[in-house]
Amino acid sequence: MKVAIVGVTGYSGLELVRLLAGHSQAQVASVHATKEVGQKLSALYPHLAGICDLELQAFQALNIIQNTDLVFFATPSGVAKEASEIFVEHDFPMIDLSGDHRLSAPSYEKWYGKQAAKPAVLDKFTYSLAEFADGYSGKFIANPGCYATATELALIPLMNWGKVDLDSIIVDAKSGLTGAGKKLAESSHFVNVHDNYMTYKINKHQHIPEIAQELKKFNPNFQHLQFSTSLLPINRGIMATAYIKMTEDVSQEEVYRRYQDFYDDKPFVRLQGNLPNLHDVLGSNYTDIGFAYNPITKVLTVVSVLDNLVKGAAGQAIQNMNIAFGFAETDGLLSGPSYL
Amino acid sequence: MKVAIVGVTGYSGLELVRLLAGHSQAQVASVHATKEVGQKLSALYPHLAGICDLELQAFQALNIIQNTDLVFFATPSGVAKEASEIFVEHDFPMIDLSGDHRLSAPSYEKWYGKQAAKPAVLDKFTYSLAEFADGYSGKFIANPGCYATATELALIPLMNWGKVDLDSIIVDAKSGLTGAGKKLAESSHFVNVHDNYMTYKINKHQHIPEIAQELKKFNPNFQHLQFSTSLLPINRGIMATAYIKMTEDVSQEEVYRRYQDFYDDKPFVRLQGNLPNLHDVLGSNYTDIGFAYNPITKVLTVVSVLDNLVKGAAGQAIQNMNIAFGFAETDGLLSGPSYL
Amino acid sequence: MKVAIVGVTGYSGLELVRLLAGHSQAQVASVHATKEVGQKLSALYPHLAGICDLELQAFQALNIIQNTDLVFFATPSGVAKEASEIFVEHDFPMIDLSGDHRLSAPSYEKWYGKQAAKPAVLDKFTYSLAEFADGYSGKFIANPGCYATATELALIPLMNWGKVDLDSIIVDAKSGLTGAGKKLAESSHFVNVHDNYMTYKINKHQHIPEIAQELKKFNPNFQHLQFSTSLLPINRGIMATAYIKMTEDVSQEEVYRRYQDFYDDKPFVRLQGNLPNLHDVLGSNYTDIGFAYNPITKVLTVVSVLDNLVKGAAGQAIQNMNIAFGFAETDGLLSGPSYL
Amino acid sequence: MKVAIVGVTGYSGLELVRLLAGHSQAQVASVHATKEVGQKLSALYPHLAGICDLELQAFQALNIIQNTDLVFFATPSGVAKEASEIFVEHDFPMIDLSGDHRLSAPSYEKWYGKQAAKPAVLDKFTYSLAEFADGYSGKFIANPGCYATATELALIPLMNWGKVDLDSIIVDAKSGLTGAGKKLAESSHFVNVHDNYMTYKINKHQHIPEIAQELKKFNPNFQHLQFSTSLLPINRGIMATAYIKMTEDVSQEEVYRRYQDFYDDKPFVRLQGNLPNLHDVLGSNYTDIGFAYNPITKVLTVVSVLDNLVKGAAGQAIQNMNIAFGFAETDGLLSGPSYL
Repeated sequence: MKVAIVGVTGYSGLELVRLLAGHSQAQVASVHATKEVGQKLSALYPHLAGICDLELQAFQALNIIQNTDLVFFATPSGVAKEASEIFVEHDFPMIDLSGDHRLSAPSYEKWYGKQAAKPAVLDKFTYSLAEFADGYSGKFIANPGCYATATELALIPLMNWGKVDLDSIIVDAKSGLTGAGKKLAESSHFVNVHDNYMTYKINKHQHIPEIAQELKKFNPNFQHLQFSTSLLPINRGIMATAYIKMTEDVSQEEVYRRYQDFYDDKPFVRLQGNLPNLHDVLGSNYTDIGFAYNPITKVLTVVSVLDNLVKGAAGQAIQNMNIAFGFAETDGLLSGPSYL
Repeated sequence: MKVAIVGVTGYSGLELVRLLAGHSQAQVASVHATKEVGQKLSALYPHLAGICDLELQAFQALNIIQNTDLVFFATPSGVAKEASEIFVEHDFPMIDLSGDHRLSAPSYEKWYGKQAAKPAVLDKFTYSLAEFADGYSGKFIANPGCYATATELALIPLMNWGKVDLDSIIVDAKSGLTGAGKKLAESSHFVNVHDNYMTYKINKHQHIPEIAQELKKFNPNFQHLQFSTSLLPINRGIMATAYIKMTEDVSQEEVYRRYQDFYDDKPFVRLQGNLPNLHDVLGSNYTDIGFAYNPITKVLTVVSVLDNLVKGAAGQAIQNMNIAFGFAETDGLLSGPSYL
Repeated sequence: MKVAIVGVTGYSGLELVRLLAGHSQAQVASVHATKEVGQKLSALYPHLAGICDLELQAFQALNIIQNTDLVFFATPSGVAKEASEIFVEHDFPMIDLSGDHRLSAPSYEKWYGKQAAKPAVLDKFTYSLAEFADGYSGKFIANPGCYATATELALIPLMNWGKVDLDSIIVDAKSGLTGAGKKLAESSHFVNVHDNYMTYKINKHQHIPEIAQELKKFNPNFQHLQFSTSLLPINRGIMATAYIKMTEDVSQEEVYRRYQDFYDDKPFVRLQGNLPNLHDVLGSNYTDIGFAYNPITKVLTVVSVLDNLVKGAAGQAIQNMNIAFGFAETDGLLSGPSYL
Repeated sequence: MKVAIVGVTGYSGLELVRLLAGHSQAQVASVHATKEVGQKLSALYPHLAGICDLELQAFQALNIIQNTDLVFFATPSGVAKEASEIFVEHDFPMIDLSGDHRLSAPSYEKWYGKQAAKPAVLDKFTYSLAEFADGYSGKFIANPGCYATATELALIPLMNWGKVDLDSIIVDAKSGLTGAGKKLAESSHFVNVHDNYMTYKINKHQHIPEIAQELKKFNPNFQHLQFSTSLLPINRGIMATAYIKMTEDVSQEEVYRRYQDFYDDKPFVRLQGNLPNLHDVLGSNYTDIGFAYNPITKVLTVVSVLDNLVKGAAGQAIQNMNIAFGFAETDGLLSGPSYL
């Protein structure tokens, strides 16, 4: 199968190239960007020399439709929604890594401050958290956000558990800088990030409505969560730390079994005996989850970690492709965590 | 005034040396350690060449009592409590930066797993969060813990505010590695910490009872807080992020004014319009505090930041000395944040 | 093919596990360590859960000989030389990642300060810089050191070039902390390494005789090089910066062509138009090389970069296995640089 | 004394504010920038709240001349040279931290690619490496560059030593990111710098002619040095590693004594028994120097370290002010290294 990548020079796009080089069925056939068209990708990104020496092409939907079998959009928000209509019209498969097709139109317009895609187009897209795709992730896939993936995988098993105060959930999430994208800004200048830790977009992060929307699917009584995001002075990795008031005491084993019921057959979610840390997953498609219950405060702490560029972006997109096209779910994704 | 430093080769001890070099009234007269006695401090720590060239001495209480006017203990927990009795007997001023004299005996024995100091000795010590010392921090001072300082300064103004659900408080605190001390351990090996973020001692950190004990002094109805601690891959700095359910809506201005009532005349607590980050305080004795209220979840987020070796240890110890001895509160502590 | 790994809990051992999981022909059959025998590797290193769940075994040579086809030693120096005799006796293939079988006996004893392996055993071993293995890397392989690999690949093409002042070579090499191993020491404590840069073992590093010994094979007139090593505050990566006085002017193209003659058919050495940096190779088995000639000083600067745990250790060991056993040279080693 | 700072929002400008807050004689009276004029400096840089709450002013030379006693220029290259003429005309003291008044006109134009200041203006300026100011650093001071300061202090004692091959000198210098300034660029984006090490401006760095020009003053036979610059993934700190071929063997003690002759009475140059590292000086105005001689290669390695924002910029500028105005040389500069 041939795939095209639009927005290949972003972090998620480059990660798609890296991971697809190890896929047994899919091959990157064309790479698209707005700048430096005509240059070899590996001339601009020498780490790819010998791995992907394709030339950058300008984006042209029909060209992609004629020459490939699937298109990935790894573009900043606002780009994919302009292009999706034509792919829908041609019934040509598209996986959008951006936030453009995840939310309902009103929610998108409120949180992204941009006009949403047309309803007819939006309706075609499936939000596909791969572990809950139930065997088919769709032809038009809205790939989940990085924070959203970590948080949803941590909280879904609790949504229908009678012992949880659904109104109490607080998530303190932290991410490395690749999560903030390539844009040059004061907030991404090395000197400002290094040896620092800063909380940003407090109560305004666009993954808040995404998480709430998805959790409600598991329990309509769930309403809101307090969710905050901070920047760690590292490149990759997300930890979502969730604090949940329990309405009755629980044991560590009981919690573990509950999560096992959800994830035992999922190749990319691992339950850990202790709280996981970022090294456990960096470079891989795993999400690791651990717990600790405090009987004094009746608070259950759930920690989930993932690599925001893999499970939080390119890796899950490939996992969704694998599910949609009937490949082995793990194809191209078995490289273990780099650990150090 | 002449001061002695016991445990000078630890991070807090070295920071005392650095800061006291700039004090107009106090002078380091003797430095004590268990190892490398007889060597010059600056031979072991060349960054101190020309700043403190004293020789390391073995600890001998009577010697200190005869030759100096005040002793700082910057030792690991369990050391100061063995030595404090003799200083109390001689009515000789002591500032203990360790946790040995902060808690009630039963609480100390439960959380530190060691026998507590004698009641008669413990009674002499005052836990002195400098901003609430009310003009006298005592002759025998238990200097607050680093996490505890950040958390107490963030929460005290809320303790008696009718609008707060006292039972809801969750604090997600993060610290750089100097907070964990000099001990060689897997968990402090560079390779394990770098590019990582890990939560440790979940529900078991010894600052939990310290914080609870102090907050109760401001409102006896306060019982427990959920408090977790994580390691940031940096050397210095603590951020305590507190989440508090409000029982009624509040405005940003209202919160600001409430904190102003507490801190307007305090030279080392600064209120910020936005959430502060670590760069705002590193290297200085400041604690910066900011807030954000979320009307949807009714959660107030309060963020406080400080340098764990300065305001969280050596700096506050000097501030306490200044208050106790009638020096200007800011003497030796006016060096601004290094920022970068 | 079944392989055993001795010293699996070291950084190179864990990296062998990670990389061999993607090998099409070789499979890790047993893992050996001195501590925590009987425990699952993935219980101690949760990042390996689902990747390698073997139990740690004590080392027993005969057991390995009976049950596997090849043994990797990823042990600290001084261990492999005690075990190699029995493998040689049984003519059982062994790849030693440590320095035990790289040097002549007198040189080993001088630089490592330990007794060398027996001459009969040492003679069996081939020092195999994979790019110069000439089709067969041997049955008993001394895998090159990390600094040595970077430096030799950078300098070999210059050894027989008439335009080089062989007596002028200075190499300023820098490495991430994994190169220094897992040992707990002041020098590997996070706080001492972070935000620091330190030169160590000046004129005493044990890779100096290794490099000199190998370069002499290419030109016996070559005698010494000035070689220094420093620690970068990162986990992985080596840059060797070599400064060479030329006896006549050279052009950038001329230098490039000379290196191309040596590396054009080598899958894991890439020549770059500009000086490479560490991101170009991290996580991969590549060595990237670039140059800059200064006509004013007549100094040619050659920069080579590699990942010390991959090309500098486990990756090259697998590459050597591939060559020795007739597998594709790149099997298990095609994962691209993680870049970020 | 009142001072004005032009370019206060750059890293060196902010560092001047920080350091001058502790000066006993000089006070920052006005701060100037091109953007955000009218705003309080501490509103933009909250770490300065309570330390410097002045409003940013547009630059106006006459205003500064009327209201202050000295002006610091902490501007990017090309700015100070446009303003210096008027200060020279009014015989008003100026310290330029930029490179605008360091080089001869032809050299400036070649290496900076800009027109030089007028000869009459340039002639008024003294290049003042503070340790060699001989009691007076001048009324119009060109403050040395950061790399240049580290390198010159390391090499000056060797210039007239008969035992040195002056033609052999190679300097491999490394700097933290603040040395590269605040500009937003790919090369200063956190993600590209973190976990990386890159050599830049090879053979083209504008400090090369500065160093050569100054060293020639000590020995006209000195011609060129091979000098390269790389970026360390840290904020502050420079290490210059110099390699010098000796024409005869030297002992460690002999080298030490030679350096002592130059620096024994200099408060901010410290000789170390071992090679210094960055932690020894960060945050302070010290330059630490160490040596190692290799009798096999006859190469002397000299390592010097400093904080590029202090001794390499703002600190040395204040030191120069102190010398020029007859204050104690160390006034405002005695804060010790932060070490961790």
